[in-house]
Amino acid sequence: MGTVRLLSDEEVSAEALAVFEDIRTVRGTDFINNFWRALAHDPALLKATWERLKEVMAPGALDPLVKEMIYVAVSSTNGCEYCIHSHTAAARAKGMNEQMYGELLAVIGMANQTNAIVSALQVPVDDAFREE
Amino acid sequence: MGTVRLLSDEEVSAEALAVFEDIRTVRGTDFINNFWRALAHDPALLKATWERLKEVMAPGALDPLVKEMIYVAVSSTNGCEYCIHSHTAAARAKGMNEQMYGELLAVIGMANQTNAIVSALQVPVDDAFREE
Amino acid sequence: MGTVRLLSDEEVSAEALAVFEDIRTVRGTDFINNFWRALAHDPALLKATWERLKEVMAPGALDPLVKEMIYVAVSSTNGCEYCIHSHTAAARAKGMNEQMYGELLAVIGMANQTNAIVSALQVPVDDAFREE
Amino acid sequence: MGTVRLLSDEEVSAEALAVFEDIRTVRGTDFINNFWRALAHDPALLKATWERLKEVMAPGALDPLVKEMIYVAVSSTNGCEYCIHSHTAAARAKGMNEQMYGELLAVIGMANQTNAIVSALQVPVDDAFREE
Amino acid sequence: MGTVRLLSDEEVSAEALAVFEDIRTVRGTDFINNFWRALAHDPALLKATWERLKEVMAPGALDPLVKEMIYVAVSSTNGCEYCIHSHTAAARAKGMNEQMYGELLAVIGMANQTNAIVSALQVPVDDAFREE
Amino acid sequence: MGTVRLLSDEEVSAEALAVFEDIRTVRGTDFINNFWRALAHDPALLKATWERLKEVMAPGALDPLVKEMIYVAVSSTNGCEYCIHSHTAAARAKGMNEQMYGELLAVIGMANQTNAIVSALQVPVDDAFREE
Repeated sequence: MGTVRLLSDEEVSAEALAVFEDIRTVRGTDFINNFWRALAHDPALLKATWERLKEVMAPGALDPLVKEMIYVAVSSTNGCEYCIHSHTAAARAKGMNEQMYGELLAVIGMANQTNAIVSALQVPVDDAFREE
Repeated sequence: MGTVRLLSDEEVSAEALAVFEDIRTVRGTDFINNFWRALAHDPALLKATWERLKEVMAPGALDPLVKEMIYVAVSSTNGCEYCIHSHTAAARAKGMNEQMYGELLAVIGMANQTNAIVSALQVPVDDAFREE
Repeated sequence: MGTVRLLSDEEVSAEALAVFEDIRTVRGTDFINNFWRALAHDPALLKATWERLKEVMAPGALDPLVKEMIYVAVSSTNGCEYCIHSHTAAARAKGMNEQMYGELLAVIGMANQTNAIVSALQVPVDDAFREE
Repeated sequence: MGTVRLLSDEEVSAEALAVFEDIRTVRGTDFINNFWRALAHDPALLKATWERLKEVMAPGALDPLVKEMIYVAVSSTNGCEYCIHSHTAAARAKGMNEQMYGELLAVIGMANQTNAIVSALQVPVDDAFREE
Repeated sequence: MGTVRLLSDEEVSAEALAVFEDIRTVRGTDFINNFWRALAHDPALLKATWERLKEVMAPGALDPLVKEMIYVAVSSTNGCEYCIHSHTAAARAKGMNEQMYGELLAVIGMANQTNAIVSALQVPVDDAFREE
Repeated sequence: MGTVRLLSDEEVSAEALAVFEDIRTVRGTDFINNFWRALAHDPALLKATWERLKEVMAPGALDPLVKEMIYVAVSSTNGCEYCIHSHTAAARAKGMNEQMYGELLAVIGMANQTNAIVSALQVPVDDAFREE
């Protein structure tokens, strides 16, 4: 259905399998979702993407749930079906309840609305908003 | 510079001025940023946009800072210069420090990267991610 | 300021100059806007773009003003500063008044808002909307 | 299939049901399309979205068919499958014939084409196009 | 499934059929893909689109495989499912191997990532990059 | 002008300065463009972005010029002013002549045009294009 076949554990290279094992360890589950099985055709790209994702989405100054909601907002704006589903599921697993989800949707909608209106009007940026 | 002239308090209609006054009260400042001065050409659109924004961005299940960071993420994905500047300034005013900002940038970058790769691969959504 | 220099009438090739002359004739003005002066570096691209634009934007089942407003809507969604300015000016020249402009902005904003919310929710298309 | 289950009339809150009833009255049909059944998980978001959509899409300085075509143009640019289907169906119901649809497609294609080329060239905006 | 029915050879106009025949001749295959069968509802749009595509994608200063990869990059950024599938298939038919595809994906991902980060930071363009 | 101040060599951390030195070595120039000076506020993000960019853009199955043109195509589709200027300059430095540039523009325009038309028509993907 995609542009490449999804690879099973038996079909991937040793380098790709090592990435799968790290995903399993970090996430505490045996489940490897389709994105990684598609990327496994290029073990170097798989590894670079996973290593960076693991680092970026780890707890830090922002908590992981906030990061997942930001991910959903970007993915919804880009219309990426797969990413919307996977990161909405991840946000829920990390504690996003229905009220939070409703507010997330409202902000995503509002931001896209005003982005388009501001763009249409080509409003000049206020000096007050610029970095000094 | 925009497609319409920015209107001063003296030039706007009574309906638009009432919206300006509400913005001033809610935000606790006399400053009206350019977006509202451009929208004031259509008082009904000005009023509807402000009323909705006020409601959507108010504290709720998500705190206002998280909402501002989501707004920045959407605006950066859409490339809306004005919105990026105004909402980055708002996020900072609400407590976003440099470490939080760095992580926000990293998530925005990662989400746009994987959105594009997933899109290129047309990865089918895992059943596990779908709503039951 | 752009990635190529804008070419004057004296600098362009004979093929490009012929396109400039056709633009002047069709539009009834001596003015050649910057887009064409930038495209003139590649006379074949200039000619193909102008010939197609001339045909697409001509009066037909949709009137030229409606076409210009659709152009503004697309350009605002894409955030194309140049196109927003040039087609908003063209829409005004063809009769778009302030009330029409306000409604255009409202529809652009609403469409971008619901596009993003629908995208976030991944709402399945109703059978009733599909072509039979 | 979406990120939330579609809710039946029996499952929604009283507030959401009142919105459904208003949709039925305004549109003169018993049919409630999936977007509203998905939004009904958050009755306040449902109500705010419907109230605004009803106002924005009502007859005004622009006729409803023109508004629907602008909606299709934005939705096609954003690649929103659901919105494209629902608003193309709505445009047809309001009188868009095949010739009008063909011209709409041509303008959408042309605008996206020149937006991208202008963007690549970073053409500076002509002074003549700017608001004085 | 689309917004229009796909037309068979028997259903299209003589003008559309002539375009189908030219597609068959140029591509050396009897196969007409769905895009053209959908466009055939508007023979003039079909003809204009095909004539231009044929010219743009022909061998020139850039070879056809490079052009197909650029097409895949744009389509992935826009999230156009149909275009991603058709142009990825075309790129493969013209010699894109798995290593080239992996690198194409990596560049698409990197470009979308840095586009978003640069956009969020609103980095001013270096004078050194501007056309003199 | 951006959302952060550009940092001079004297202002950045030791970790960031080491990245600047690597950029200088790899590129064979003392010049550090603004993107890196903005990213230097977050040395870890600076380092991760540069390390990945260096790897992705290096010669491989695709030559560096092709990669730069793909980067320009993505950046133009996203409307990223900074990225368009920096990667167009890079493509020229790597040998892109005016004829190649004209063809690149034509493909970018064509792809964005057909993406939008296909999207509007919601053309179903041909079985022939899907991965077996």
